[in-house]
Amino acid sequence: MTSIPAPTGAFINRQWRLAARPQGLPVATDWSFSSEPVPEPTGDECLVRVLHISLDPAMRGWMNDGRSYVPPVGIGEVMRAVGIGRVVASAHPGFKVGDVVTGAFGVQDYAITDGRGVTPVVAGSAPLTQYLSVLGMPGMTAYFGLLDVGRPVAGETVVVSAAAGAVGQLVGQIAKIKGCRVVGIAGGLEKCRFIIDELGFDAAIDYKSEDVRAALREHCPDRVNVYFDNVGGEILDTVLTRLARHARIVICGSISQYNNQGPARGPANYMALLVDRARMEGFVVFDYAKRYAEAAQELAGWLADGRLKSVEDVVAGLEYFPETLLKLYSGANFGKLILSLGDEAG
Amino acid sequence: MTSIPAPTGAFINRQWRLAARPQGLPVATDWSFSSEPVPEPTGDECLVRVLHISLDPAMRGWMNDGRSYVPPVGIGEVMRAVGIGRVVASAHPGFKVGDVVTGAFGVQDYAITDGRGVTPVVAGSAPLTQYLSVLGMPGMTAYFGLLDVGRPVAGETVVVSAAAGAVGQLVGQIAKIKGCRVVGIAGGLEKCRFIIDELGFDAAIDYKSEDVRAALREHCPDRVNVYFDNVGGEILDTVLTRLARHARIVICGSISQYNNQGPARGPANYMALLVDRARMEGFVVFDYAKRYAEAAQELAGWLADGRLKSVEDVVAGLEYFPETLLKLYSGANFGKLILSLGDEAG
Repeated sequence: MTSIPAPTGAFINRQWRLAARPQGLPVATDWSFSSEPVPEPTGDECLVRVLHISLDPAMRGWMNDGRSYVPPVGIGEVMRAVGIGRVVASAHPGFKVGDVVTGAFGVQDYAITDGRGVTPVVAGSAPLTQYLSVLGMPGMTAYFGLLDVGRPVAGETVVVSAAAGAVGQLVGQIAKIKGCRVVGIAGGLEKCRFIIDELGFDAAIDYKSEDVRAALREHCPDRVNVYFDNVGGEILDTVLTRLARHARIVICGSISQYNNQGPARGPANYMALLVDRARMEGFVVFDYAKRYAEAAQELAGWLADGRLKSVEDVVAGLEYFPETLLKLYSGANFGKLILSLGDEAG
Repeated sequence: MTSIPAPTGAFINRQWRLAARPQGLPVATDWSFSSEPVPEPTGDECLVRVLHISLDPAMRGWMNDGRSYVPPVGIGEVMRAVGIGRVVASAHPGFKVGDVVTGAFGVQDYAITDGRGVTPVVAGSAPLTQYLSVLGMPGMTAYFGLLDVGRPVAGETVVVSAAAGAVGQLVGQIAKIKGCRVVGIAGGLEKCRFIIDELGFDAAIDYKSEDVRAALREHCPDRVNVYFDNVGGEILDTVLTRLARHARIVICGSISQYNNQGPARGPANYMALLVDRARMEGFVVFDYAKRYAEAAQELAGWLADGRLKSVEDVVAGLEYFPETLLKLYSGANFGKLILSLGDEAG
């Protein structure tokens, strides 16, 4: 086993643990902030210094009890989160000190791992935060959700909600690369301007100030062939009124409903699926793990030739985790939301 | 032009016309019962004596204003309905007196037609009512909806709602022919016994007396691969909790919602589509018109060799149209609901 000194002042591992199952939006008492000595890897384990933590809308679902695509986070456990970090001590034959790795390291300064689910990052010229964004899960989600489930054809109209978010910004740009007309739905004038001016979307709808139904009529004269849904709720219901024949609705998330205390709101207009011979289909990005490398290579190529931009919204300081997470649900984040910690961050 | 005398006492064409757009279930004042002399065909038209009229859940939708897969029936117009009849006078080169034909003849004794949408029936040994049932739209709907949209594979579990109805009875039997485990959801013990004992379903769930969720757990130990939905509402929401991975939900109808006065109930559990990587897809049978003959041939073969049964619930008398139609929405019908008229009926 080899090791290097942990960064100065970082012999303590601070951790955010789930203290209670939230009712609605997570509040302070749903969390506990604890600390422990930095653990020592044993057996085949290695110790990772976490550098950046991905904050994802899906984290809210992991806090609930009940059946989902992953088990819930247990009460008292460190909150689950995907992160990127550097190996600082290793007894694992597959990882050596200094390696940059991604994995579900949790919301903490250091993680002990047996290597399962941990992927080495061949850190090139891309900023490390991009491995949690366009070259990480948001990128894979946008790529496979749009191309494999949505299957857009050049000339078709693609609509994406949460269009200035981590996944939405990429969905729209990939659809443009594929020759589609792209309309983004986002909250606020600033985001709407951004997705048009910076990301090259054809049109934007500000759901906070516009009549979404009227705006869809204006911006989707040939109706909607692919709708990539990150939000659910009223926006999903409204887009259902504007489908083209044989439309595909990609169910990626339903962030408007994650903090509901009552039953979720179902899409009352779902019979549009019949009228328009359309389908609504869900997916889980983990199912595409064997093809991540293929997607990352294509995405990196688009980044390199300037056809794709990746925007990250980085907040520094592990201690700000609870309030930073809430930015996702208020729509305050701009691009991929990342919590950075450690000296190498940024 | 040739003609034969109209049946005795039938020189009057009685017609049910839409008098008002119903609020909820259609009531007496939503209809007007009128009569006129039997019309004379002119130009290239022919006159059809209607023998049997198909009563379909979708008729309720045709009575509403608004966008759908067919235009609404106008106020004052004869109610739209598919029927089978005999040509009794013809100036149309494609039809001669005595021909048996199907088409959208409306809820009336006689129909004038220019031949568009009218299909000759080569009446063989099958009762004429079967051309409105297994060899007509319900048969086509079950066949293409199940096989083309649902795509069941031998060994999979198929669940169908309104399982003793016109389409449901056929969906379940076709799924059995394809080697699937079949569970029907129906209202009442009698229907449940019927679909098991007479139609060969593996299990039945009486939604009126059973806990559907618990019954699905019991009867679908490997979860649900294909759900053919005729009803929407609470049953759709419950089946969503029991999907197998990569399940297909075929949206064929939502009879539980057709008479709603408020907004339709959307499937609150639709995020199961994500968790289970499933899809929900609608279809309109008319899109398969070019393949009707292929389906009818296969269905007729299954009928002939005894693998498929077709049950029709026949009510005699045009005057009973309004109350007979309501049987569909109370679940009182058993198999395909048909209104018969004329001397040749039955």
